[in-house]
Amino acid sequence: MKRAKGRKNNQLRATKIQTGVNRYAEGSALISMGNTKVLCMASVDEFVPRWMKDTGKGWVTAEYGMLPRSTHDRMDREAKKGRQSGRTQEISRLIGRALRASIDMEKLGERQIVVDCDVLQADGGTRCASITGGYVALHLAIQKLLKKKVITKNPMEVAVCAVSCGMFGKDALLDLNYDEDSTADVDMNFVITSDNKFVEVQGTAEHRAFSFSDLEKMKDLAVKGSKELFNLQKKALK
Amino acid sequence: MKRAKGRKNNQLRATKIQTGVNRYAEGSALISMGNTKVLCMASVDEFVPRWMKDTGKGWVTAEYGMLPRSTHDRMDREAKKGRQSGRTQEISRLIGRALRASIDMEKLGERQIVVDCDVLQADGGTRCASITGGYVALHLAIQKLLKKKVITKNPMEVAVCAVSCGMFGKDALLDLNYDEDSTADVDMNFVITSDNKFVEVQGTAEHRAFSFSDLEKMKDLAVKGSKELFNLQKKALK
Amino acid sequence: MKRAKGRKNNQLRATKIQTGVNRYAEGSALISMGNTKVLCMASVDEFVPRWMKDTGKGWVTAEYGMLPRSTHDRMDREAKKGRQSGRTQEISRLIGRALRASIDMEKLGERQIVVDCDVLQADGGTRCASITGGYVALHLAIQKLLKKKVITKNPMEVAVCAVSCGMFGKDALLDLNYDEDSTADVDMNFVITSDNKFVEVQGTAEHRAFSFSDLEKMKDLAVKGSKELFNLQKKALK
Amino acid sequence: MKRAKGRKNNQLRATKIQTGVNRYAEGSALISMGNTKVLCMASVDEFVPRWMKDTGKGWVTAEYGMLPRSTHDRMDREAKKGRQSGRTQEISRLIGRALRASIDMEKLGERQIVVDCDVLQADGGTRCASITGGYVALHLAIQKLLKKKVITKNPMEVAVCAVSCGMFGKDALLDLNYDEDSTADVDMNFVITSDNKFVEVQGTAEHRAFSFSDLEKMKDLAVKGSKELFNLQKKALK
Amino acid sequence: MKRAKGRKNNQLRATKIQTGVNRYAEGSALISMGNTKVLCMASVDEFVPRWMKDTGKGWVTAEYGMLPRSTHDRMDREAKKGRQSGRTQEISRLIGRALRASIDMEKLGERQIVVDCDVLQADGGTRCASITGGYVALHLAIQKLLKKKVITKNPMEVAVCAVSCGMFGKDALLDLNYDEDSTADVDMNFVITSDNKFVEVQGTAEHRAFSFSDLEKMKDLAVKGSKELFNLQKKALK
Amino acid sequence: MKRAKGRKNNQLRATKIQTGVNRYAEGSALISMGNTKVLCMASVDEFVPRWMKDTGKGWVTAEYGMLPRSTHDRMDREAKKGRQSGRTQEISRLIGRALRASIDMEKLGERQIVVDCDVLQADGGTRCASITGGYVALHLAIQKLLKKKVITKNPMEVAVCAVSCGMFGKDALLDLNYDEDSTADVDMNFVITSDNKFVEVQGTAEHRAFSFSDLEKMKDLAVKGSKELFNLQKKALK
Repeated sequence: MKRAKGRKNNQLRATKIQTGVNRYAEGSALISMGNTKVLCMASVDEFVPRWMKDTGKGWVTAEYGMLPRSTHDRMDREAKKGRQSGRTQEISRLIGRALRASIDMEKLGERQIVVDCDVLQADGGTRCASITGGYVALHLAIQKLLKKKVITKNPMEVAVCAVSCGMFGKDALLDLNYDEDSTADVDMNFVITSDNKFVEVQGTAEHRAFSFSDLEKMKDLAVKGSKELFNLQKKALK
Repeated sequence: MKRAKGRKNNQLRATKIQTGVNRYAEGSALISMGNTKVLCMASVDEFVPRWMKDTGKGWVTAEYGMLPRSTHDRMDREAKKGRQSGRTQEISRLIGRALRASIDMEKLGERQIVVDCDVLQADGGTRCASITGGYVALHLAIQKLLKKKVITKNPMEVAVCAVSCGMFGKDALLDLNYDEDSTADVDMNFVITSDNKFVEVQGTAEHRAFSFSDLEKMKDLAVKGSKELFNLQKKALK
Repeated sequence: MKRAKGRKNNQLRATKIQTGVNRYAEGSALISMGNTKVLCMASVDEFVPRWMKDTGKGWVTAEYGMLPRSTHDRMDREAKKGRQSGRTQEISRLIGRALRASIDMEKLGERQIVVDCDVLQADGGTRCASITGGYVALHLAIQKLLKKKVITKNPMEVAVCAVSCGMFGKDALLDLNYDEDSTADVDMNFVITSDNKFVEVQGTAEHRAFSFSDLEKMKDLAVKGSKELFNLQKKALK
Repeated sequence: MKRAKGRKNNQLRATKIQTGVNRYAEGSALISMGNTKVLCMASVDEFVPRWMKDTGKGWVTAEYGMLPRSTHDRMDREAKKGRQSGRTQEISRLIGRALRASIDMEKLGERQIVVDCDVLQADGGTRCASITGGYVALHLAIQKLLKKKVITKNPMEVAVCAVSCGMFGKDALLDLNYDEDSTADVDMNFVITSDNKFVEVQGTAEHRAFSFSDLEKMKDLAVKGSKELFNLQKKALK
Repeated sequence: MKRAKGRKNNQLRATKIQTGVNRYAEGSALISMGNTKVLCMASVDEFVPRWMKDTGKGWVTAEYGMLPRSTHDRMDREAKKGRQSGRTQEISRLIGRALRASIDMEKLGERQIVVDCDVLQADGGTRCASITGGYVALHLAIQKLLKKKVITKNPMEVAVCAVSCGMFGKDALLDLNYDEDSTADVDMNFVITSDNKFVEVQGTAEHRAFSFSDLEKMKDLAVKGSKELFNLQKKALK
Repeated sequence: MKRAKGRKNNQLRATKIQTGVNRYAEGSALISMGNTKVLCMASVDEFVPRWMKDTGKGWVTAEYGMLPRSTHDRMDREAKKGRQSGRTQEISRLIGRALRASIDMEKLGERQIVVDCDVLQADGGTRCASITGGYVALHLAIQKLLKKKVITKNPMEVAVCAVSCGMFGKDALLDLNYDEDSTADVDMNFVITSDNKFVEVQGTAEHRAFSFSDLEKMKDLAVKGSKELFNLQKKALK
């Protein structure tokens, strides 16, 4: 497997995180990983979903979407089709679970933060980029709440990021682009915390079932990549 | 009526049109008019809607959408609600009609161009910005078809742009931002061609019915603004 | 352009407005303009939409529909398709805006009037007939509220009606029927008040962009037609 | 049970059937039974549903709807709610089955007739009026096909009509209006052919279960009423 | 007409009712009539629909569904298609009406019982089996409420069951299976109470209109069959 | 953590797989794992989805559903709500991917097998039970195709099953029931092949992020459990 632009197997794509990209959202970030670009905006609501009322706890949720021509061939607009695909809902739920792992909901108090992740351009790894960039938007929204003294204790406990890996024969590769993603034998996504633990591990056999040692190889790459991503998040948040 | 940043009544907001903002779309443009930002992407399909089959003619259509946090307060995502609002459909139809006015459908041949206009940030005038920017995306897609010799005669006949005007008491203002738009007595949108004719004229009494002389005042401003917008389109297309 | 039945360019079709056509609605009118027939029923609700609660103001809204065989070829029933078309919603919104222009919402008080305009037979100009007939239904509902002393001050400020015009080459025509409407170069709808002002002006280039002098010609015809329509409304309301 | 306007227990409401009420439909009828008014329009399609293709047989189907203010209190518009109620679908299916009983589908040939029954004003018995009036519209559409020699053999085999009955204590009543319908102990609808047989019999215990002798009493009334309805149909079709 | 397995015209299929088939539902029953199998589960809610609030009365409603492969050929899943068919809603409404006839709603008090009838395998007569089995599930739920002293007076007034009949030429047959159902000339469903009265009578001419003496023949069979079904219900409830 | 009924941490619940539970489906199985019961039915279609046409390959897909009262508290029926939840779609997609891993699609040929997994009673682990039981239904359908010589080469390559694990503090537990599932710190699902590889690995931090050694502990339990499940599948298929 030769990677585009001479990228090494354990190398992330060129990644940038730009903050303050929307003047209304309490927190916003535009993340690009190679040709994948996701706009992440965190919105604070001073209420929680009905089923959480009067628990004293907050909530973080996420919504994922793709612009119709974010992809190589234009896709139909989900709003026009009248429903979100199973894939869209699955990814929205994943991002939400990932981001919730970074927050102490009691310190957040009874308010909700919705993180919208809209893909402007897709070249593989959009769910991972959404989590990595969504964390930055969420962090900025929390900082704003602290600054305005809406909350007094910092509910951010840990940073989270996500990265994909894949197996090609015996080789494990980090951060797959679309071409790699669609030909990999195995495809795994790791959501990792800055204290080096896992929030989500999702591995799928695309062309062959995989062994546990495959899984370990990919895990090692993912941990390596996550360290670089945490550094990029920190830099963006300065 | 005092305008923000000392803008004059007959002055457009700072407007920029950036092209080539998406690597997949046949034509793309990011237009910003003040704080309003719209991403316009033109996609070419080598087929036409069923009701146009075997007519030898092409078709241009448009779809409009707003990101949930493009607005001051977050809106629900239309894909999640399961339907596009009446407003969304109305604007999509308007953009489509406007862009079709610039094209000779026989020269386009039996193919369709879909122009997606997605609002990244909204501060009034999003439908007008979508038309002005959408024209640029459409133009680029046509140029690509000509370059690749998919079509041999240029179907672009005329440029189109759009601009809003409003009445505040006796004063007519050009290019309303959101605050102006929501307090104007009368609100008009003009879709204008580069040979100085009208494709659409839509005036709505928001707080009082208007006289024909009001309409004339707004028309004069719109024509003045359109000339500047045609220059910006030309510059972007160079 | 030769018009059917020797009609002159500046002549309305034979128009009738019949009131009291439904025993339940607070106000009702059946309007026929040539072969176009629209049943208009105004219903009073003693509440307002949620976003208007506790404002002390009332609301007027409209819903438009077409019977499946109101048209030359049968259309699918929107209730069965599970959604209203963009056109239906656009026209509903237009009728609502037009009728609201006739009412002082503070005098109406916190109640809502819904005006249903259902097309029994369509031969062009259904949105205009809906506004002209809908005004009569609305007026009757208001009169009933005054008579029953539910409200004490008359909130009706001005009458509204609507009429379409079109350009055929250099000729402007008043009140287009379906055949004319589908071949006109330009198509305009004017919503006019009885004190000779405009509530809505909507012009669309169907086959060619139009000049401002085209617009003026059509405006003159529309004003002429509106005077006749106001007389017919008055007669019907006696 | 005292009936409105001194009506006898075995007496139909004043019933009128007016034909030719729509200029496009192949057959049309406006039926009024007391204050219930239903507009029935038959539309001929030169195709059949997919599952009937190449059977050589035709098809008759029906769609039922109510205008929002056909009822005492305004109902939400089904097209706006995005779905037809169970009741609407149930009645549509009933009307379709009833009308199909009058036709020899082989003689009709591979074409479909859709009968739209739209309630303009509802005062009980709308499904029965739809069947009785729908038969007239269907008959007229068939006559048109025969006249234009699209079909050569008359597929109409028998007339159908429908009427409701109810039990109040020991008394059976014919043709219930809305007030009666909502207080009856038992409610039955009979679809009857002109050769005195039954196409549908639907009895429902509203407030008490009923005996077979109750059913017989109601059946006798229904047969009596059907004879008068067949005469009215004949008169309308002359 | 020769029946499968030498069954006589007036003979029910082998019928079994098994109770306690679900550990969560307040009442549950699995009924099999020949190859038709329906799982019935009664759920108690301590509230009533909004329109019944503060009436002091309870409510019983039913929902019917078929598993996709309950039928000979797999059907699409209604949840996936995004809507229940007219048939599904019609049957749900019928089951609800039938079961409500067995209950004194004042004694039930302001609570609701929902009876879900899900067809595991369908071989004709699923709506009748749903009513007969649904009654058992409802009865068990009521007994549980009495045992837990949530209610003190028994609201069950009478048992209900349902059975289908059909005409084949001059012969009336009891309890049609799918093959019989789809070839019968006439098809009737009877919902009967244990004191020998009717809750619903629904007869449909499938291939020919029917006489009143046909109806009487079918009614006699249905009454005969109902006696056997009431015995089976009693046995199951012991 | 004390488990119900003295179950050990590495012990499956009592599990049974019953085959031939539906007379129409090409393959069917009812699996119960403790109180979780899922009915699995495989249906063969002699066509493939449009996007697979003319590839010469077959397809296997799955649909998951829950009966409304399969759960402790009754859930709304998805068919009635008009849409499948994100969770339902996510599980349907997972089951499909899992089952596809067992099949050589070229040997299956251009036909599709749909495996419906309907939960009759839910006590945790329904997605895993669906995969384990769905495999049996699929296997039976394949055997039928081989027996009828519709296909000549056996496309089954490997068995698949699935099992859940969870962490409670430092303890890993096998096959969580609902109470355990909702209190576990970490929750993992493993889809495993009979040659001891992984098709899907999905781990989610519910209350705390987890270490890689946690993941290894759970993996070991899952592999142990899978061996017992493969034996039960074999026994059922004899």
